[in-house]
Amino acid sequence: MNGRADLDIVLLHHPVLNKEGTLIGSAVTNLDLHDISRAARTYGVKQFFVSTPYRDQHELIGEIIGHWRHGYGSSYNPDRKEALSLIAPATSLEEVLETIEKRSNYRPFIAATSARCHQKTVSYHAIKDRLFTKKSPVLLVFGTAHGLAETVMDMADGVLPPISGGSDYNHLSVRSAVSITLDRLRGTEKV
Amino acid sequence: MNGRADLDIVLLHHPVLNKEGTLIGSAVTNLDLHDISRAARTYGVKQFFVSTPYRDQHELIGEIIGHWRHGYGSSYNPDRKEALSLIAPATSLEEVLETIEKRSNYRPFIAATSARCHQKTVSYHAIKDRLFTKKSPVLLVFGTAHGLAETVMDMADGVLPPISGGSDYNHLSVRSAVSITLDRLRGTEKV
Repeated sequence: MNGRADLDIVLLHHPVLNKEGTLIGSAVTNLDLHDISRAARTYGVKQFFVSTPYRDQHELIGEIIGHWRHGYGSSYNPDRKEALSLIAPATSLEEVLETIEKRSNYRPFIAATSARCHQKTVSYHAIKDRLFTKKSPVLLVFGTAHGLAETVMDMADGVLPPISGGSDYNHLSVRSAVSITLDRLRGTEKV
Repeated sequence: MNGRADLDIVLLHHPVLNKEGTLIGSAVTNLDLHDISRAARTYGVKQFFVSTPYRDQHELIGEIIGHWRHGYGSSYNPDRKEALSLIAPATSLEEVLETIEKRSNYRPFIAATSARCHQKTVSYHAIKDRLFTKKSPVLLVFGTAHGLAETVMDMADGVLPPISGGSDYNHLSVRSAVSITLDRLRGTEKV
């Protein structure tokens, strides 16, 4: 595995913003769990936290994971089982931080992500460097809906620059954003 | 826009392979169209060809695009309309090549993609270089299901190396693979 520090990701469903900038809790989707866990497994992510405070959403996460971990899916597609086994349900960002700290003995460096520029910018290069040189884990925070609430940004140690493809369009799916961010931090064979 | 040559992508639903390596035609999915068109728009892709020989699948593509191009979705979410307007339905890779040649007066360089290593490897760097220095377009070919059939590989001018994240796992979704490939070829601000 490239780097010595653990890399974790969390997909926050609350507190996030809707189209109008109002604070909401969004719904967990089957596809986010599948696509992001496959990318997480590819790039050696330690745990993929799926965070929502809602009990019914935790039941949904349990059902999705269950089918592939223990049900018919687990024998039909063991590769999927392997990816989905990285998923750890959580109720809040605070709980995620506690879990990582308990696991690794370090408070993680919190790198938030955004489709907009932010004052607390931390470069991809700096995070990549951290993963190689420091022992403390890095937690990448991704938001669903229209992005992370300001309170989450306040908790972050740094915010990664928005992903740019040379155009004026910044409406990638969170699934694409996670994949690209992981590749920028841990991709190899960039020949 | 970075580079002088056009970059196009095609998502092939036939001829592709199933889990057992048998030649099949796969089904078009709503989500591939949305996620990939958003990534395509972000990275300045000229056209996103969705190729399937089946008439009912073309009707499905028309319904998905129609809602967002002309229906309620077009006013509710104009950003999505903008992305989905890149989609061009096609019946085969040959038809895609003809369309690009007619549009640009050049036969495109065909860069296939695969989760496995291939003899005709062409590096990301070489394609990136082509986009800056040549006038002829580059067509990236992505397969659904378990990947492109050998006949498609035979038609390719080169095959990009499998995306590696430093692990032994190579089961990314095609949505993630497209996003990462576009970022490797056209991403900016890699600081």
